[in-house]
Amino acid sequence: MPARLVECVPNFSEGTRGAVIERIVAPFRGRAGVRLLDHRADPDHNRLVVSLVGDPEPLADALAESCRAAVASIDLRTHRGAHPRIGAVDVVPFVPLRNFTMEECVELARAFARRFSRETGVPVYFYEEAATRPERRNLEDVRRGQFEGLCRDMGLPGRAPDVGGPAVHPSAGATAVGARRFLVAFNVNLASRDLAVAKAVAKAVRASSGGLPCVKAVGVELADRGMVQVSMNLTDHRRTPVHLALERVRAEARSRGVEVAETELYGMVPAEAMLDAAAHYLRAAGFHPSQVIELRLLDVDEGVADSPQGTGAAR
Amino acid sequence: MPARLVECVPNFSEGTRGAVIERIVAPFRGRAGVRLLDHRADPDHNRLVVSLVGDPEPLADALAESCRAAVASIDLRTHRGAHPRIGAVDVVPFVPLRNFTMEECVELARAFARRFSRETGVPVYFYEEAATRPERRNLEDVRRGQFEGLCRDMGLPGRAPDVGGPAVHPSAGATAVGARRFLVAFNVNLASRDLAVAKAVAKAVRASSGGLPCVKAVGVELADRGMVQVSMNLTDHRRTPVHLALERVRAEARSRGVEVAETELYGMVPAEAMLDAAAHYLRAAGFHPSQVIELRLLDVDEGVADSPQGTGAAR
Repeated sequence: MPARLVECVPNFSEGTRGAVIERIVAPFRGRAGVRLLDHRADPDHNRLVVSLVGDPEPLADALAESCRAAVASIDLRTHRGAHPRIGAVDVVPFVPLRNFTMEECVELARAFARRFSRETGVPVYFYEEAATRPERRNLEDVRRGQFEGLCRDMGLPGRAPDVGGPAVHPSAGATAVGARRFLVAFNVNLASRDLAVAKAVAKAVRASSGGLPCVKAVGVELADRGMVQVSMNLTDHRRTPVHLALERVRAEARSRGVEVAETELYGMVPAEAMLDAAAHYLRAAGFHPSQVIELRLLDVDEGVADSPQGTGAAR
Repeated sequence: MPARLVECVPNFSEGTRGAVIERIVAPFRGRAGVRLLDHRADPDHNRLVVSLVGDPEPLADALAESCRAAVASIDLRTHRGAHPRIGAVDVVPFVPLRNFTMEECVELARAFARRFSRETGVPVYFYEEAATRPERRNLEDVRRGQFEGLCRDMGLPGRAPDVGGPAVHPSAGATAVGARRFLVAFNVNLASRDLAVAKAVAKAVRASSGGLPCVKAVGVELADRGMVQVSMNLTDHRRTPVHLALERVRAEARSRGVEVAETELYGMVPAEAMLDAAAHYLRAAGFHPSQVIELRLLDVDEGVADSPQGTGAAR
């Protein structure tokens, strides 16, 4: 049976107290079907970002346990940090990775939110793909006024939570639970010191100014490297693949007399994004990810085994 | 802990009797640490090719059990088939895939061979990287004369087995056990009907005529598609990566006025080969396979977790 995989990147409002961080992270360790990829606490942001991948069900179970620990340990009334937040468990985005549709992911997010709210009394807003109304798609809008503002405003028209309420949890605030595509952070460095070129190229490729769908882009300076950069977030690499973003940036830069120096894939990336790029440039007709040995290993052992793919050679 | 992975593609001299095939394959099913990727029996060859991936130790255990079943069930004295063979268990190549060196793989192959020979009485020849003398590197040389020839010749100077002997096993013959790199089967189709061009390009790129290291290549006709093909085996994709093979074929074809139409990756391919190609064409400086989520999932859960790689975005 093909393994279903989701990513989840819960953000908690705790960036300093090691014991609390450990209590929040512990439920993800050594848990069958769940993999803790990364966690990083930022003291300035006073925030903990956890990267998880796993089977949807055990992942939701571990997450519920972790969130109960966060609600029990974090008090927003005394929390200070540079990053905006509305709750002890601030945001919980679910990301479909493998053999799992966005619709299933929205359902998972909403079911998790109902369980979390029932177990902790914390009200929940749905955002992005899980949003129940257009004005809640953007996380920034959901988080407007932060914890302090929400304590005051949750009763106002239009600010009632999707689950729980009618008031914020006194110490743990509220939580935003969403579903979204995997974000690929892809930067293209240009062999130029001209920031205006990077900004013009960024504008030409980003979705918001009529460029490529699902691309966010800004032009930035890499002063110490003597280059400028088009820094992109690809919010749906199936709609705009990495290679297509690169080729558009290359064309736009070239039309301004500037060449691409190199690129950077920042942080994690789904295999599919890299395989798509490889197959594109290799012009590999009919290539399928199931041909990649390592990906086959992720699938659950079958008993009846055997794919249509053969091995390259008979010995 | 990073997972160690080897591939193994044992070939058995049975292509028709379903019950025997099932007895040979059964030890690989539902076994912790071992994945049966594929098995295919060819009645004309009267041969069964099994593709396994797994942790070296449980894989060797399952393989020993499977080989005992093959030795007990196959009689070379009555075996007929189109494919050359010397034994019931004909060849057993081990391929290092992940966190496992070729040296470790040679050691694994030789340890397996000693155990197999002790358990079954079948003598073993080492080949390719596991060979103990240069003239046994090529499997074709080891298999010369096939079962029938070996029954006669095993006592001759130079034909003594590396393990066991001095005579062939009366019904199960002998076995070749080796270690080699993963073979990537990569075909480049040319937009031309001129077989002479494909043959000339193949000759220019293949190692044996001074082309690229670790490349075998022949020119063939794809009559029904109106194209010709440079059909390659890359015997070490680290030394000559897929993209380099393509670019050399492209340049050689172009110098003869012919363009590349498309390519085909045939059968299984290691993730690294595709990631190398993607990183090359994307010019992705500093890209590392550990950035690929799915590859991280293959590693054993740690308890202390956490890599230097962050997540692309904080929410």
